[in-house]
Amino acid sequence: LACLRARSLSGLPEVRPGDDLGALIAQALDGERPPHGLGQGDIVVVAQKAVSKAEGAIVALADVQPGDRARELAARTTAARGGKGVDARFVQVVLDQSAEVMRCERGVIVSRTIHGFVCANAGVDLSNAIEPDTAILLPRDPDASARALRSRLRELTEAEVAVLVTDSFGRAWRHGQCDVAIGCAGLSALEDWRGRTDSVGRELSATWLALADAIAATGELVRAKDSREPVVIVEGLERLVTEPDGEGAAALLRAVDEDLFR
Amino acid sequence: LACLRARSLSGLPEVRPGDDLGALIAQALDGERPPHGLGQGDIVVVAQKAVSKAEGAIVALADVQPGDRARELAARTTAARGGKGVDARFVQVVLDQSAEVMRCERGVIVSRTIHGFVCANAGVDLSNAIEPDTAILLPRDPDASARALRSRLRELTEAEVAVLVTDSFGRAWRHGQCDVAIGCAGLSALEDWRGRTDSVGRELSATWLALADAIAATGELVRAKDSREPVVIVEGLERLVTEPDGEGAAALLRAVDEDLFR
Repeated sequence: LACLRARSLSGLPEVRPGDDLGALIAQALDGERPPHGLGQGDIVVVAQKAVSKAEGAIVALADVQPGDRARELAARTTAARGGKGVDARFVQVVLDQSAEVMRCERGVIVSRTIHGFVCANAGVDLSNAIEPDTAILLPRDPDASARALRSRLRELTEAEVAVLVTDSFGRAWRHGQCDVAIGCAGLSALEDWRGRTDSVGRELSATWLALADAIAATGELVRAKDSREPVVIVEGLERLVTEPDGEGAAALLRAVDEDLFR
Repeated sequence: LACLRARSLSGLPEVRPGDDLGALIAQALDGERPPHGLGQGDIVVVAQKAVSKAEGAIVALADVQPGDRARELAARTTAARGGKGVDARFVQVVLDQSAEVMRCERGVIVSRTIHGFVCANAGVDLSNAIEPDTAILLPRDPDASARALRSRLRELTEAEVAVLVTDSFGRAWRHGQCDVAIGCAGLSALEDWRGRTDSVGRELSATWLALADAIAATGELVRAKDSREPVVIVEGLERLVTEPDGEGAAALLRAVDEDLFR
């Protein structure tokens, strides 16, 4: 009987630039009632904003000088939103984080980020949590962030866990957002069953599984929808956790020349 | 402490046309060791193929006469796959299930189905499980399937559960497939937090959540990758389960004129 459990970790403080996120997580684990901690093969799912804040991947809009293209896109986006103003400095940050703007329609900028993710606003969020009008960027290298956090948690808890860094992305043809993995260490982001059948020749219902994204989506179901609970612990998927860090969430990205929908 | 548990249901027989799927599920629940059953507010996640088989949404390729367009697309797809033959009768079934073929490149037919889903091969799978060369279609109306199964499970178990019917879909810019909800009864497929902040003004990490898809993805993590375990029970999300069936998974579909990537 395959069984999975996921719980959100409460008791984390608001994460600030320079914080040791691994230590904050270990501390929050120690405070769990009943005491629970991390087990071998647990998966630690961390929302991107907590990682970005700890790494200082933030920009104060006051320091941003928007260029012509940012002003133009901000005006288009503002118009498409019925006049609800979009800050050109925010758009400049989005452009700085983008390798390519793919669409700017209906008030949404969809781009391919410098990391290769396709998402709204290059994954940049506006926040007042640290100081007024702060842009929170995606981590510079989310797979490296996942590896570093995994290593730190191993030091602090002696548990060999996997770590996912997640963000909420919209989808091409479906409403709403789903959490996906943007960083991954210690599990294969994809599981390949292509061309295989089971022992009695039954068909397989899916053949190339984006497991890291499915685990990210599980995490979103248990954590609070604000930034107070950025960490979820998933148990029961030990079979997926590997000793090597693996190739990370980068393996989930389609190459630009494989994109059927440019 | 928010907590979620998901388990696969073992002991289901191979589902065949005309089977009472609700009764098969109730029977398998009775056989669980330890006895477990269904609780109020559990979510029953069922892989589409089991639903389609029970409903007889299958076509024997021997009965299909491919038209010119099917032959042409089959030839293109076969060529793109390096000569690995694609059956024109299968392509005809895909066309019959499609409202619009969106792409046929690199050996993949991506279409918008008659239901409005955008996916590979209009969700049609080839199977030898029932008889040789059988095409399994998506259910004719997956939301209606979910409602009917919910009602049947209420009769048999007295538990008010939610039901999701799921399938594995590829994504536009990411490798691999994730399970998504194609039918839904008894929970809101989307949760809307747009424009809201928490009590101390912290930003929300996601604002319009495709919860039904996240639950579908959770299901895929615990069931076997072949067709033997099409049913997963998710506990701990009672807060999402509603007495009305709700508007179903159809609410997840972007209208054609909102599609930024046609």
